Amino acid sequence: MIKFGRTPGDLMDMLAEASLRAIKHANADKEEFDALYVANMMAGETSHQTAVASSLADRIALVPAAADRVENGPASGGSAVKNGFLAVASGAYDMVLVAGGEKMTTADGDVTTDLISTMTHPTAEYVHGVTLPAMGGMLARIYMERFGVTDKHLGMIAVKNHANAVKNPYAHIQRACTVEGTMQSGMIADPLRLYHVCPVSDGAAAVVLCSMDKAKKFTDKPVRIAGVGQATDVQSVQEREDPAVLKSVQIAAKRAFGMAGKTTKDIDVAELHDAFEVLELAEAEDIGFFEKGKAHLAYEKGETTLTGKLPINTSGGLKARGHAVGATGVAQVVELIWQLRGECGERQVKDAKTALSCNFGGFGNNTVIHIFERGW
Amino acid sequence: MIKFGRTPGDLMDMLAEASLRAIKHANADKEEFDALYVANMMAGETSHQTAVASSLADRIALVPAAADRVENGPASGGSAVKNGFLAVASGAYDMVLVAGGEKMTTADGDVTTDLISTMTHPTAEYVHGVTLPAMGGMLARIYMERFGVTDKHLGMIAVKNHANAVKNPYAHIQRACTVEGTMQSGMIADPLRLYHVCPVSDGAAAVVLCSMDKAKKFTDKPVRIAGVGQATDVQSVQEREDPAVLKSVQIAAKRAFGMAGKTTKDIDVAELHDAFEVLELAEAEDIGFFEKGKAHLAYEKGETTLTGKLPINTSGGLKARGHAVGATGVAQVVELIWQLRGECGERQVKDAKTALSCNFGGFGNNTVIHIFERGW
Repeated sequence: MIKFGRTPGDLMDMLAEASLRAIKHANADKEEFDALYVANMMAGETSHQTAVASSLADRIALVPAAADRVENGPASGGSAVKNGFLAVASGAYDMVLVAGGEKMTTADGDVTTDLISTMTHPTAEYVHGVTLPAMGGMLARIYMERFGVTDKHLGMIAVKNHANAVKNPYAHIQRACTVEGTMQSGMIADPLRLYHVCPVSDGAAAVVLCSMDKAKKFTDKPVRIAGVGQATDVQSVQEREDPAVLKSVQIAAKRAFGMAGKTTKDIDVAELHDAFEVLELAEAEDIGFFEKGKAHLAYEKGETTLTGKLPINTSGGLKARGHAVGATGVAQVVELIWQLRGECGERQVKDAKTALSCNFGGFGNNTVIHIFERGW
Repeated sequence: MIKFGRTPGDLMDMLAEASLRAIKHANADKEEFDALYVANMMAGETSHQTAVASSLADRIALVPAAADRVENGPASGGSAVKNGFLAVASGAYDMVLVAGGEKMTTADGDVTTDLISTMTHPTAEYVHGVTLPAMGGMLARIYMERFGVTDKHLGMIAVKNHANAVKNPYAHIQRACTVEGTMQSGMIADPLRLYHVCPVSDGAAAVVLCSMDKAKKFTDKPVRIAGVGQATDVQSVQEREDPAVLKSVQIAAKRAFGMAGKTTKDIDVAELHDAFEVLELAEAEDIGFFEKGKAHLAYEKGETTLTGKLPINTSGGLKARGHAVGATGVAQVVELIWQLRGECGERQVKDAKTALSCNFGGFGNNTVIHIFERGW
């Protein structure tokens, strides 16, 4: 991947750079690629460009490989990895490149917030002016009232993720913060303050997928996709039985664990989709790592730090690694591949054998969860 | 599918209607769907909406099925069908809905022409003001100079496609035309006149995919996807060895025929991507139906009419069925399914057993070809 942040290159520059790095890291030969999948949410709106997958195939000389763009809002990356995986599993393709990228910092902040809001329900939510931070704020309020979560807990999550990002050269914000500092930061969407909300980032990430047999020819440390689960939910949050329950996360997790033949106890490290810090709690609970409404207690005990029982967001998460929408799901996978291969340097989780990524689309109406394990 | 044209509904209305019709026509049960793929090129730009696949899952009550949007410019439909097919072939999903839709008539014509141009090379083509009709015009000029094609030949293609559309209740333009009429129509991009260029259409289409075993439970006339081929080419037309040769079409066709174990001689009916009438000639040649530079001679003899040797664009093609960009590739497949099942009424090709669709993206930098056959 490339470092997330405010990057000088345009979307194609970023996608090309991340892709070429992935191909090089995999020791793969360009001629071997049958297909590429590109995750991107809004190149048409922010870069006035469509069909970016075809463009990338040309740019990095993978022509005549098949090329498709996959879009699923902020879960585009997870969806692209899934479709690349299914394409290899179908037997149609031997080698697939999956890249995700988003150029977000060229537009004004208000424009970007609006563009991201276009994933909400067009007539039940968007027209009434709802934004994603507003939804995050409402979820945080419910968590505070119902489960006793405080802004101190939200701050603890940010502190952990920033601390991890300091050790990640690819992170957008490589700067530590304190719980007190987070509590004094500006209000974004009550009760969410600046340090409870992810930044707007440019970025790109890529992975190479192939059968396990083929992978073993490239490396003695291939990572296996053990399972994938994806699920949608009712789009309009107000129509859900309980707005604090992320049903798409529950079902996607159940599907992924089912395919992998594993349980939450098998997971050594996880990347969750903390676009808002409260989401890290809710996802960790709905995946099944913690009881509903209890995750924040584990954070009090430091259970999700690098040396805790279950390190979460070792990359820095969306909060500090950054959130380049279409790239995020792929960047999560990159971090976990590095963790499983022991390539994470200072932020390495000791002896990580099995990992889980949760890429959350819309406001929980489409979630993609992958489970990875060492393939050696 | 729904009738293409200037429709009153918005994108979600169209996608929902086409999807519900497909599910009903397949005698399928909503609960059985594991996933949906939605082909759409530019909902963000024209409808200010993203993540439309998640939205459709909710709108037609397929939640919690997985949902992804696939974008490949005007070949988005072909790409979505391919990915739905590979997902079923992988064993991950039993039942998949593939829908394609585009709302194009709300924007001004100039805006639409610009938005479609965003699929050209961003720095080598788009910035210089190239549009797709201009590219079509240049290809037509080469065809005229090199192969002796005249505007009369282009008119013959339009006349055939309009005649077919008169018999297709789903076509945008259900009106016959004459060769003389086409030659007097307004100039769009020299030498292309109005009747050599497809209209801007709203539209949606959908198909249900599952394993053959499962399909036989729903119908005694299941259609089998025998092969699929997709290929990219260099994006910038000026960089291609020969601008008159559609390499992506050649390679996609070779791949599709290879998977299907068939040759051009097996094809009884085809839907080609005639965004500009000259493309129908070039594709028919590069697929291998005719020698390069000779297709127009077959048109002189009426070989591609409904009663000819190889009926092409029985739906009316992009020229008269219409071109609702993201929907087009799916609409091609719908027409061929109906042809193979003998459900095309007045435009039915007698005893059609094997069919081919060619969905052309960019200006030939990403083509998806499917081959279908009777599954009974």
